[in-house]
Amino acid sequence: MRWDAVGGDEAFPFSHRLRARFADTDAMGVVHHGAYVRYLESARTEYLRALGHPYDEVRRSGIDFSVVEVGVRFLRPLHFDEEVDVATALTWRRGATFQMSYRVEAGGRRRAEGVTVHAAVDAEGRPARLPPWLPPPLGS
Amino acid sequence: MRWDAVGGDEAFPFSHRLRARFADTDAMGVVHHGAYVRYLESARTEYLRALGHPYDEVRRSGIDFSVVEVGVRFLRPLHFDEEVDVATALTWRRGATFQMSYRVEAGGRRRAEGVTVHAAVDAEGRPARLPPWLPPPLGS
Amino acid sequence: MRWDAVGGDEAFPFSHRLRARFADTDAMGVVHHGAYVRYLESARTEYLRALGHPYDEVRRSGIDFSVVEVGVRFLRPLHFDEEVDVATALTWRRGATFQMSYRVEAGGRRRAEGVTVHAAVDAEGRPARLPPWLPPPLGS
Amino acid sequence: MRWDAVGGDEAFPFSHRLRARFADTDAMGVVHHGAYVRYLESARTEYLRALGHPYDEVRRSGIDFSVVEVGVRFLRPLHFDEEVDVATALTWRRGATFQMSYRVEAGGRRRAEGVTVHAAVDAEGRPARLPPWLPPPLGS
Repeated sequence: MRWDAVGGDEAFPFSHRLRARFADTDAMGVVHHGAYVRYLESARTEYLRALGHPYDEVRRSGIDFSVVEVGVRFLRPLHFDEEVDVATALTWRRGATFQMSYRVEAGGRRRAEGVTVHAAVDAEGRPARLPPWLPPPLGS
Repeated sequence: MRWDAVGGDEAFPFSHRLRARFADTDAMGVVHHGAYVRYLESARTEYLRALGHPYDEVRRSGIDFSVVEVGVRFLRPLHFDEEVDVATALTWRRGATFQMSYRVEAGGRRRAEGVTVHAAVDAEGRPARLPPWLPPPLGS
Repeated sequence: MRWDAVGGDEAFPFSHRLRARFADTDAMGVVHHGAYVRYLESARTEYLRALGHPYDEVRRSGIDFSVVEVGVRFLRPLHFDEEVDVATALTWRRGATFQMSYRVEAGGRRRAEGVTVHAAVDAEGRPARLPPWLPPPLGS
Repeated sequence: MRWDAVGGDEAFPFSHRLRARFADTDAMGVVHHGAYVRYLESARTEYLRALGHPYDEVRRSGIDFSVVEVGVRFLRPLHFDEEVDVATALTWRRGATFQMSYRVEAGGRRRAEGVTVHAAVDAEGRPARLPPWLPPPLGS
């Protein structure tokens, strides 16, 4: 898990807007930390669609992007009904593995940062070649 | 809980589009039945916004719409990444209580129908007058 | 969906104890209504295990109990960390379909009541015969 | 976030057993990665109870353990209905901040490892002194 890209200057190539749901909140009155993991997943899914390869089609082609690592740093809380922008970029790749980084913002302020590491696997769960259409890592 | 409006001919005044997330699916390969409850909530929240009264503001004004009943009928499964339209209408009201009905559709087919019953309560949880801006029940 | 058994005098044959998680709460400071659907599912799963037929084995035998209807009535809120007892019974059956009813209690008080209706389906999603080990409906 | 304790030899002082719910699974047929975050939270909550300080009481005393960081490494998938043991230990502390580490096991095999970092905050969200009853870091 490499956090350097998240804090860097380089703009992320894609951003997904979503709405913090009431079901995402907890008794502290803010969005529960577990909900961010779903937000990252939504941004990742929408980025694949924007790349012309909806994850649904990727899966039907026999490839899954299994999650092998996830990390989130919480900077400032999100509240119910806030519009949230989750920017994402592919920030590292090697062999069958790649990393996505995420910047979670709302109301012009960074709320959280995240990283997920994925392994491409075939239908039997064996490592698979990364699809050629995956973008090169940010900054490469 | 009254189901008649859901199956009726009358169009619902509002519809919210959302995307079935991977996190919403289960090991049967379809959207888990529990996720629909969150979909209804999202549609309800967006309808209040469309009425000019975001639920966040309603809550800050001291009123909560506590959920006292929920029901969902599952007609055909939803799958990951489908675009889902949740139409909603206020279909009944009496005293501090009102009912919302929902039609869940995707790809031109009805997938589920739902009903929620709500009680307006103040900060102490006591029954409160329904806000005057709530629409009259569908068909009234 | 038949609610009569829930309010009846007859004891339910099985009860599952669980703990309300912090992740289950929402910004109203209570357990979110959507979490109850997962509580009912846990109780149902544990009841099948108590009957000697873990749902996992049922599924491997080629049968799924697809959820075709769910309903919950919320009587008094549940709070974080409360111990919750979910009693359940099979309360109706016909053809490939059966209904489970639920009483959700904590601290000696009824908090919610629920009903789920299920259809037995085979691997292709076609109606399947109900397994012979399913108990007769409560009171029959 | 420090991962060294997770892979170390030292036994963790507490372990919580839970059951993987069907609602926790996803369309890959395994427990969704987001569910693990809830599993860690349950283990943490139960550990506080075992220490004689249920988190509910901690919160009523005016202290919250806000989550500032979470990380999970997924080693082998969990499946529906597996019994899961989540061992946890306090592995680092400084000022108002402490770290918990987690080992997630089932069927005698390590499935995942996790870390959460928490800040003690008062009712206004300001840093608060760590309660004196929090155990010293593992190995200190």
